[in-house]
Amino acid sequence: MSKSKINVGNFFEDFRIGQILRHAAPRTVTVGEVALYTALYLPRFAVQSSKAFAQAIGYQEAPIDDMLVFHLVLGKTVPDVSLNALANLGYADFKFLIPVYPGDTLDAVSEVIGLKENSNRETGVVYVRTTGKNQRGETVLSYARWVMVKKRDKDAPVGPAIVPDLPKAVPPSELGQAVPKLNVAAYDKALAGSPFFWGDYEVGEKIDHIDGMTVEEAEHMLATRLYQNNSKVHFNQYYESQGRFGKRIIYGGHVISMARALSFNGLENVFHISAVNGGKHVNPLFAGGTIFAWTEVLDKAEIPGRTDIGALRLRLVATKDKPCAEFPLTGPGGKPDSAVLLDLDYWAVLPR
Amino acid sequence: MSKSKINVGNFFEDFRIGQILRHAAPRTVTVGEVALYTALYLPRFAVQSSKAFAQAIGYQEAPIDDMLVFHLVLGKTVPDVSLNALANLGYADFKFLIPVYPGDTLDAVSEVIGLKENSNRETGVVYVRTTGKNQRGETVLSYARWVMVKKRDKDAPVGPAIVPDLPKAVPPSELGQAVPKLNVAAYDKALAGSPFFWGDYEVGEKIDHIDGMTVEEAEHMLATRLYQNNSKVHFNQYYESQGRFGKRIIYGGHVISMARALSFNGLENVFHISAVNGGKHVNPLFAGGTIFAWTEVLDKAEIPGRTDIGALRLRLVATKDKPCAEFPLTGPGGKPDSAVLLDLDYWAVLPR
Amino acid sequence: MSKSKINVGNFFEDFRIGQILRHAAPRTVTVGEVALYTALYLPRFAVQSSKAFAQAIGYQEAPIDDMLVFHLVLGKTVPDVSLNALANLGYADFKFLIPVYPGDTLDAVSEVIGLKENSNRETGVVYVRTTGKNQRGETVLSYARWVMVKKRDKDAPVGPAIVPDLPKAVPPSELGQAVPKLNVAAYDKALAGSPFFWGDYEVGEKIDHIDGMTVEEAEHMLATRLYQNNSKVHFNQYYESQGRFGKRIIYGGHVISMARALSFNGLENVFHISAVNGGKHVNPLFAGGTIFAWTEVLDKAEIPGRTDIGALRLRLVATKDKPCAEFPLTGPGGKPDSAVLLDLDYWAVLPR
Repeated sequence: MSKSKINVGNFFEDFRIGQILRHAAPRTVTVGEVALYTALYLPRFAVQSSKAFAQAIGYQEAPIDDMLVFHLVLGKTVPDVSLNALANLGYADFKFLIPVYPGDTLDAVSEVIGLKENSNRETGVVYVRTTGKNQRGETVLSYARWVMVKKRDKDAPVGPAIVPDLPKAVPPSELGQAVPKLNVAAYDKALAGSPFFWGDYEVGEKIDHIDGMTVEEAEHMLATRLYQNNSKVHFNQYYESQGRFGKRIIYGGHVISMARALSFNGLENVFHISAVNGGKHVNPLFAGGTIFAWTEVLDKAEIPGRTDIGALRLRLVATKDKPCAEFPLTGPGGKPDSAVLLDLDYWAVLPR
Repeated sequence: MSKSKINVGNFFEDFRIGQILRHAAPRTVTVGEVALYTALYLPRFAVQSSKAFAQAIGYQEAPIDDMLVFHLVLGKTVPDVSLNALANLGYADFKFLIPVYPGDTLDAVSEVIGLKENSNRETGVVYVRTTGKNQRGETVLSYARWVMVKKRDKDAPVGPAIVPDLPKAVPPSELGQAVPKLNVAAYDKALAGSPFFWGDYEVGEKIDHIDGMTVEEAEHMLATRLYQNNSKVHFNQYYESQGRFGKRIIYGGHVISMARALSFNGLENVFHISAVNGGKHVNPLFAGGTIFAWTEVLDKAEIPGRTDIGALRLRLVATKDKPCAEFPLTGPGGKPDSAVLLDLDYWAVLPR
Repeated sequence: MSKSKINVGNFFEDFRIGQILRHAAPRTVTVGEVALYTALYLPRFAVQSSKAFAQAIGYQEAPIDDMLVFHLVLGKTVPDVSLNALANLGYADFKFLIPVYPGDTLDAVSEVIGLKENSNRETGVVYVRTTGKNQRGETVLSYARWVMVKKRDKDAPVGPAIVPDLPKAVPPSELGQAVPKLNVAAYDKALAGSPFFWGDYEVGEKIDHIDGMTVEEAEHMLATRLYQNNSKVHFNQYYESQGRFGKRIIYGGHVISMARALSFNGLENVFHISAVNGGKHVNPLFAGGTIFAWTEVLDKAEIPGRTDIGALRLRLVATKDKPCAEFPLTGPGGKPDSAVLLDLDYWAVLPR
């Protein structure tokens, strides 16, 4: 009787192609979340930090940080999609489509777009397309994500493998949708902290963001709860002490947000993450580790129809306990450097 | 001269029957408190989480979480009532009477309704009726509480023992006052996270909420300060290192809020604590402990005049470092299980 | 190429007399920041805690805590002024000039008003006048500050020493500018927590604030990030483990705010810091330390033209792991007591 009321999460054999998962816990995001996000990561991008700055260039209000929007949307999907996941495998076709402002309410829906059992029959890969919407039903964020999920029963039959065809990168024509037409003349570079606009960055350029930030248990748990992400591995030392690592694993999104905030030093005017082309959590992080980050400019693009903003395709690499003056990425034998936590490929926009 | 300006708290012999204590520090509760509360406990009840959801069913705004209201009211009483308390003994006739919304200002008044010296003459039990009011003077919360308070002077004379007659349980006719008439048709079960309404719960049903949450020093201190609760034992490691346990004691209310948030898994639509019949902090909690929780349905009741909501009388038990699959409560010899932290008896409401 | 985009901070020889530094990251301060500030320090002053209380006596809203305003303004100056500082030497002529309310946006400008190379030629003292402004361009806070900054190159030539002439104390005629004309009749002493007004304090009076508060790593880092203060020594255990102390140094402002909040017990109606005459961070604090505080009334003053409020000149002393019943300040040989963290000389106002 009682067991039936508990959500123990879906297992691989519970998913069906085309299945629509309406996720629980709609959330009104407010200046309270914004303040906590600042306290957790030290972001300093002027557009998100100042209502006056944002309004001067054409926003209705200071928009909510893109990654905070992402974490809130992702958090809702956890109970239905990844409570029994062993690994977060990838993201693709990940686009921010409208700005989110304090007072907006977010909810999320996912559609199962791919299923592929692994050869050991104990796990399978679940592909979902998740859509975050605001209280007017407008899509604010859309992304494909795939995770490795346990089977409840190894012998449970599953359907044929279906792997969706996902783009390797979001095309420039789809960038900048969440940015209103900017009044660039009103964009105050000194207040924003840097003279460098789109034209000042070159493909191949690498930037060591120099600073590092140590993460404490209380911090990553506050963050992950703020996102209403109830993934078990982040919170329960009683269980994790008996687990794979002996300690709580920090939510990978915490590393993304910290690396993004560290990247302010060198990317001060790169105020908006427009799309994510792909990303990998290369190694787990635990409390006590210090995050460093560096960026490589992979590509530059004009955005069709936009003369106010341009796009940079950036690789953001975060490391643990390893400064980034030498841009660590691969170690001996071409394997990833063991200090690398994150390797993220995204499109960002900044004024031209 | 200077000593006289310091509040060292009232001792047992300072209290008088009928004494009115107007507590300091009125507090405007905002979306800032709401965000922090989310980050501290991971509550996911849709009514409190989403303005859009709350308004759709008949609330003016997303109401403030009941336990956050309670913590804020209780915090105000500490300097006058329990600064010299050795134990928090009980609660009765504890009712939420109007919703609290962001922007409301709370203050609190207590009346001394009972006094009983203990036989050792070193302590006594103080009973107060505390009333939390909003900026319009409306009572939002009312409860009786009794605490064991030290005497300043063992030989100080005290009056005759007076013990108030308090109800064992709040009657159903007094429940649901803080819930506006709901438009249940607009209550979206999928968004709320569960198909189970009032009719789906049975008396005697037990629910293991399965998840656990480890508590860090920084977290419980942030919470307790958020409530402006200045009880000394929670904050001062310098003194506590020389004290009874050698470490800071976590505010009992932190355990209540954590257990309540954990209980979302299985009670997703049980969105409002309407009344508390009684409760006991069975054992203290210290940082590093992992909280688990389970619930038993003690009773069900219709609320006179309400066809939109029904009431469940629930026992919420929280444990430390002990999963709740076997519903731990009593140990050998009928004594409380030493892992039990909290045994709370409350009335909650949910849609019918 | 990439190096040029990184801010490594100014060195002593980079500063010029009369140089104007417009600091980055304008910041809208909201109720989110207010809630976090409460959770970090446990302030209980009624004016800042309650919109209803503040409005009853003549404020437009509950004003933002003075020290939160200061931290936000100071945080902005760090990347330009003190990223290469070895010591924060002093403050003078530090005045709050208009109340800041939730929704206001702050930015900051500094002018270099003094430069003096040290005799070792490896460092020099930089004096700045920093002005914090709101979104209407009104000055909310103005202060002079001097810090010891490293030279990049010992042999770099520098100009002649110029040391500004700064007042030893802010005169009473300049106090209370950030306080609207108060309706003192509406000031409810019971709600504020004390019967003591300006007339009740005497010059020479000392107050032991009795309570203590232990600081955790997560707490001071959350605070310092909330202020967007990116000074390196507070966050990076990887580097600090190899540094002077082997651990992260807590932002000195965290100690000021904690001591100020502790001082509520004895100064309940002293709701506003109007000016700072001078201050010294006597010793660094590290996580795990417990802060205590005491106050001495150095002077009392009427404020010209104001019959509603009066000023107290207060010395606020904070200690580490040392209760303040004996008002610790100097140790053997007249040197500062090694437990003293802070010695702050400020003007505060309270109702008459």
